[in-house]
Amino acid sequence: MPDRLWTVKEYPFHPEKLRYYETIFTIGNGYLGTRGSLEERYDGDSPATMIHGVFDHAPEMSVPELVNAPDWTDIRLTVDGTPFQMVTKSSSTLKPPQGLILGYERKLHMDTGLLRRVVLFRAATGATVRVTFERFASLDDQHVMAQRVLITAIDGAPVIELEAALNGDVSNNGVRHWHKLATSATTEQIALSAVTGQSGYAVGMAAVVNAPQPVTPHADPVRPAARLRVALAKDGSFTCDKITAIYTSRDTADAPSAAATKASAAAALGYDALYAAHVAAWRHTWDALDIEIEGDEAAQHGVRFTTYHVVIAAPRHDDDVSIGAKTLSGVGYKGHVFWDTELFMLPPFTLTMPPIARNMLMYRYKRLPGARQKARDNGYEGAMFPWESTDTGLETTPQWSDPLPPDNQRIRIWTGDNEQHISTDIAYAVLQYWRWTGDDAFLLNYGAEIVLDTAVFWGSRVEERHGRYELHNQIGPDEYHENISNSVFVNRMVVWHLEQALHLLDWLQQHAPHTAQRLHESLGLTPARLARWQDIIARMYLPFDDTRQIHVQFDGFFDLEYIPVRHYEPRVGGIWGFLGHERALQSQVIKQADVVMLMALLGEAVGPRQVLLNNWDTYYPRCDHGSSLSPAMHTWVAARLGLDDEAYYLFTHAAAIDLEDNKGNVVDGIHGAASGGLWQAVVFGFCGLHLTEAGPALAPRLPAHWRSVSFNVVYRGETRRFTARH
Amino acid sequence: MPDRLWTVKEYPFHPEKLRYYETIFTIGNGYLGTRGSLEERYDGDSPATMIHGVFDHAPEMSVPELVNAPDWTDIRLTVDGTPFQMVTKSSSTLKPPQGLILGYERKLHMDTGLLRRVVLFRAATGATVRVTFERFASLDDQHVMAQRVLITAIDGAPVIELEAALNGDVSNNGVRHWHKLATSATTEQIALSAVTGQSGYAVGMAAVVNAPQPVTPHADPVRPAARLRVALAKDGSFTCDKITAIYTSRDTADAPSAAATKASAAAALGYDALYAAHVAAWRHTWDALDIEIEGDEAAQHGVRFTTYHVVIAAPRHDDDVSIGAKTLSGVGYKGHVFWDTELFMLPPFTLTMPPIARNMLMYRYKRLPGARQKARDNGYEGAMFPWESTDTGLETTPQWSDPLPPDNQRIRIWTGDNEQHISTDIAYAVLQYWRWTGDDAFLLNYGAEIVLDTAVFWGSRVEERHGRYELHNQIGPDEYHENISNSVFVNRMVVWHLEQALHLLDWLQQHAPHTAQRLHESLGLTPARLARWQDIIARMYLPFDDTRQIHVQFDGFFDLEYIPVRHYEPRVGGIWGFLGHERALQSQVIKQADVVMLMALLGEAVGPRQVLLNNWDTYYPRCDHGSSLSPAMHTWVAARLGLDDEAYYLFTHAAAIDLEDNKGNVVDGIHGAASGGLWQAVVFGFCGLHLTEAGPALAPRLPAHWRSVSFNVVYRGETRRFTARH
Repeated sequence: MPDRLWTVKEYPFHPEKLRYYETIFTIGNGYLGTRGSLEERYDGDSPATMIHGVFDHAPEMSVPELVNAPDWTDIRLTVDGTPFQMVTKSSSTLKPPQGLILGYERKLHMDTGLLRRVVLFRAATGATVRVTFERFASLDDQHVMAQRVLITAIDGAPVIELEAALNGDVSNNGVRHWHKLATSATTEQIALSAVTGQSGYAVGMAAVVNAPQPVTPHADPVRPAARLRVALAKDGSFTCDKITAIYTSRDTADAPSAAATKASAAAALGYDALYAAHVAAWRHTWDALDIEIEGDEAAQHGVRFTTYHVVIAAPRHDDDVSIGAKTLSGVGYKGHVFWDTELFMLPPFTLTMPPIARNMLMYRYKRLPGARQKARDNGYEGAMFPWESTDTGLETTPQWSDPLPPDNQRIRIWTGDNEQHISTDIAYAVLQYWRWTGDDAFLLNYGAEIVLDTAVFWGSRVEERHGRYELHNQIGPDEYHENISNSVFVNRMVVWHLEQALHLLDWLQQHAPHTAQRLHESLGLTPARLARWQDIIARMYLPFDDTRQIHVQFDGFFDLEYIPVRHYEPRVGGIWGFLGHERALQSQVIKQADVVMLMALLGEAVGPRQVLLNNWDTYYPRCDHGSSLSPAMHTWVAARLGLDDEAYYLFTHAAAIDLEDNKGNVVDGIHGAASGGLWQAVVFGFCGLHLTEAGPALAPRLPAHWRSVSFNVVYRGETRRFTARH
Repeated sequence: MPDRLWTVKEYPFHPEKLRYYETIFTIGNGYLGTRGSLEERYDGDSPATMIHGVFDHAPEMSVPELVNAPDWTDIRLTVDGTPFQMVTKSSSTLKPPQGLILGYERKLHMDTGLLRRVVLFRAATGATVRVTFERFASLDDQHVMAQRVLITAIDGAPVIELEAALNGDVSNNGVRHWHKLATSATTEQIALSAVTGQSGYAVGMAAVVNAPQPVTPHADPVRPAARLRVALAKDGSFTCDKITAIYTSRDTADAPSAAATKASAAAALGYDALYAAHVAAWRHTWDALDIEIEGDEAAQHGVRFTTYHVVIAAPRHDDDVSIGAKTLSGVGYKGHVFWDTELFMLPPFTLTMPPIARNMLMYRYKRLPGARQKARDNGYEGAMFPWESTDTGLETTPQWSDPLPPDNQRIRIWTGDNEQHISTDIAYAVLQYWRWTGDDAFLLNYGAEIVLDTAVFWGSRVEERHGRYELHNQIGPDEYHENISNSVFVNRMVVWHLEQALHLLDWLQQHAPHTAQRLHESLGLTPARLARWQDIIARMYLPFDDTRQIHVQFDGFFDLEYIPVRHYEPRVGGIWGFLGHERALQSQVIKQADVVMLMALLGEAVGPRQVLLNNWDTYYPRCDHGSSLSPAMHTWVAARLGLDDEAYYLFTHAAAIDLEDNKGNVVDGIHGAASGGLWQAVVFGFCGLHLTEAGPALAPRLPAHWRSVSFNVVYRGETRRFTARH
């Protein structure tokens, strides 16, 4: 299989796409993610290392954010005294004083999670070297980061000065979270520790440089470094490895000490051994998660790329963190956890690497206190999960936006108040996990409590009006329409949620009566409450237009201005920016799959096939995919409805969101939900994977030119391979 | 088959790659080529329309060049008074005074030779339109160029003003060739004519605008236009077609009149009918030329792209022109014809569309007088073709380069003096054409004379020294080494040439004695001369190292500085620029396949397999592929030698030359030789197509992951389909 289906390449250097490539070339291991910034830095770059769970609420910020950690990648060089840098100005001399880049290639190897950059550099003296940088975040030992620099003299015999550092001079877009910076530098190690200002998380980093000769330590209060001076022979070369260990106070009481010990141990093993173990871990991962598509190389590459980015952000050894909307690839959305996790990124792990899915569900379980707090604060019962979640479990959605074009106004953000379906989304993920894994222990100890206490919330949240149950002041998936009444998505999912809660209780009564009893008592599942759930199920208002035989997205939707969204093609990003906030709110333009999302999640339970088709014909043309979450869900549904052309078109749109930057904001980070959604679009959509009484089964509806799709699924502990064909 | 294998897409707008896309998006029909510049123009663009055969020698230039014709694509718009332009500055208002691009996509449809651009544009009034531009150069009627503009109101009901023009304000990088500009504008037609200053070629262009309402003519001495004002209704749209006819004095005595008549007739047929005929012609062309590769979409796409660009430049109805090094896609290399045509671009036509190959060979036949003149001027006999050729048939290689970095010095260009193998390259193409087509009439009337009179040249050119025949002051394919002695490529090809000439004479004696007699007499093929050819064949010096069992590229090659070229990776372009001219000349760095090229052309006739492998191991590592001609030839040879990894690596390099711009100079035009070479690398290299006594046969050596390669070959008038598999 050609290498290019496992790699992403930058060639030659594209400074105009600097931040795009920083995002695209993020590496990670589920513990942290590090953007693909250049070791020696470049003007206008945005390096970041995001460590799961390390949030901080700076005084000048309205909400906490995931903290950009000190930079472990920092390596600088000189060649015959000329600083090594990506000089892109065209030179009119063979020996320019600022040096000259003669060649460049960078590749992300998705199969092995390795980022490699090769640069041909000429110094002012005319000496020319090839410098190869490699880096990986060990998937085998998540506290270990490895870098290799290989320098070869191509022309001349230059003197190389190398400085490998840990750099504490970092911020989140100017906001500084790290305090109590302490550093050290010895011939053995350089080290750095710091503590976040508000939350008090400590980070400890230590790095050992393995080089052909001893290093000179360079003490610095912010950027301790190890220095090396090597006189290269003609055609000579040398290799320098930097092995960094990272711990936080989330891992251990003494993070600096743990880092120091680990760095020494890992460096003693050496780069090659660390890499071998890392590659083995990646092989296991791809064996589990890879989707093989025959007959469409762009699709194959696109699905691998998106899968890679979800994988590197997924916590493997920590059940107290979850994946933020931009994964760990940037500071966008401040590292907050949304429904993006449960409905988009988590299902691939539920189906292929259940322990990872379980970690993320446990993150929610451990935040039930916060969810209960939010319910109480809003006058409801049970557990009401925050729309945006951090370490605290409290609602951390900002109330106001940053200043927005065209007029730099701040806009009130209502999602923290009213986008309440997140509680049901989490319940959906719990039950999906349980059904596929058969992990009864998880259900009994944790999962059931999530499903049931969020059901309790809904029981208290619904409103009896007009002789039926209604839900007002909601935001559905389509966030262009705020504080609406009777979102069919929300109302229908609440019905589904309460049905599932009652079924779950029945199952518990039968299979785990003690747990049932415990939950009955602790959550107050009185007969009256359960009877009310039944009543809500029976009498929930589900807006439906009998004439057109369609679900109505929410009350009054069709009274809004009709804007033919399809006419606004081709475009980059949503049309919200073209219409302006006010007008967008008053129009029928839909941000993302909403009724269509409901059809993805519940399938034919939503209605007869003709109604589903009618819904599609109504809402698809009104959707501008202003959210990256949208195209994959549309792909899924279109495939299920047999709308092959639309399904494939939307698939290509979804697959290109990050690689082609077709939302125009990859600089901020990877679109995690779109990535996880793409995996689902192929597996649930094109392949039609579903559960029957006899276990998982396919109902393929592949794009015409695809020959086959193959993937593994772990069903109740057993790995099964599926191949879908026409 | 997915559309993307037949298209090249720009999305969104990439102003930083403006000239790259202008080249990539060139359209053409073998009569002219037009770069993909925007109809309304853009700052820094380089539009060009190159018409075959229209050369001119401006007084300020050292040599003639192919003339950039008046611009037939010129269309400008306003929307509610706002000029339509690709505004890329980010706007902080919804209604910026300069307008705003909301969306953009451009696609070249290689299957139909159609370039389509779709732009979503908002005027200062807030009115938003979608504008679709289409253009094609009719492959059915080469004098007809068609454009369509479709404008749809997306938001609001704007007034559109459209101006369709013919623009005589053109130059070749500032050099103005057109004089006696005359224009007219009526309600029926706009027209423009002009004459080149030195050569006196006349061009006549006439355009008819088909629109929903009559146009207003706008007279202008340089840029006659037809104007239109349309008030769009809400959601309204209108289509405006511009049909342009182009003739030159090469086609007819009264080009303006022919253009006027043709424009009226074509416009009466209408855009849709013209397009239908054009598409049919493209279908025939792809049926003939397409290589289908199963198992490698990037390869499939790459080969289609390069084939497309050779096709649009190949003369279909004119046997007095040939394809320049940059095809018709830019002013690079001034439109001059090199060996690139005969050995790189012509063979695909010889094998698939012989009449086109014949046209290009006739171009050479008609320039025998010039070649004889060059021989005489240099004191030789027979026909000595110029290294760079235009309409005159005289040598038009400039003697001095433009000022070059790093020090703006001009370098003496010796190729016009000493790159003499071109005469043999042309003979090779003639004989290849004859063997595959069986076109005896061409051979008897034209081809034999080329082969024999260039043989006469070599008979007079060789030097008797050291008791053998030698050739001094030569330049082989490797142009880094100038004025060398005993290029093994040249010497061996001369031997081959003389052998072929003698065989040809035998064949003529037997099958066409009258022709043999005629040529004997007219070319002076005396027994003494033929005996000398035999003697040259027997005693030509072919530099060979007995110890290493390799051919020596030329005398003294291994005395030069050895530079490990492979170390200079990754890079863009050759390493000549890194080394400087002086040092490059004194090193073993090879610009392109030279001994390797010899192995491509003559195969096992060059030597035993082990020698061929030794040659490869010697010369491949010394080659920097500073010429785009190199990678495809290396691919071919590597495949034949069973060096699968190298073959595939070099193939990907060759296929990416234009699409990935890996030589860094696509702005100047398409690499025509690399394009034709890629086709040959697949057919002759990977598939091993060769002639046996029983006809064509394959000897496949496909890249491991390729499943099959299929293509058609016309052998002696009969179309045969071949499919190569492992």
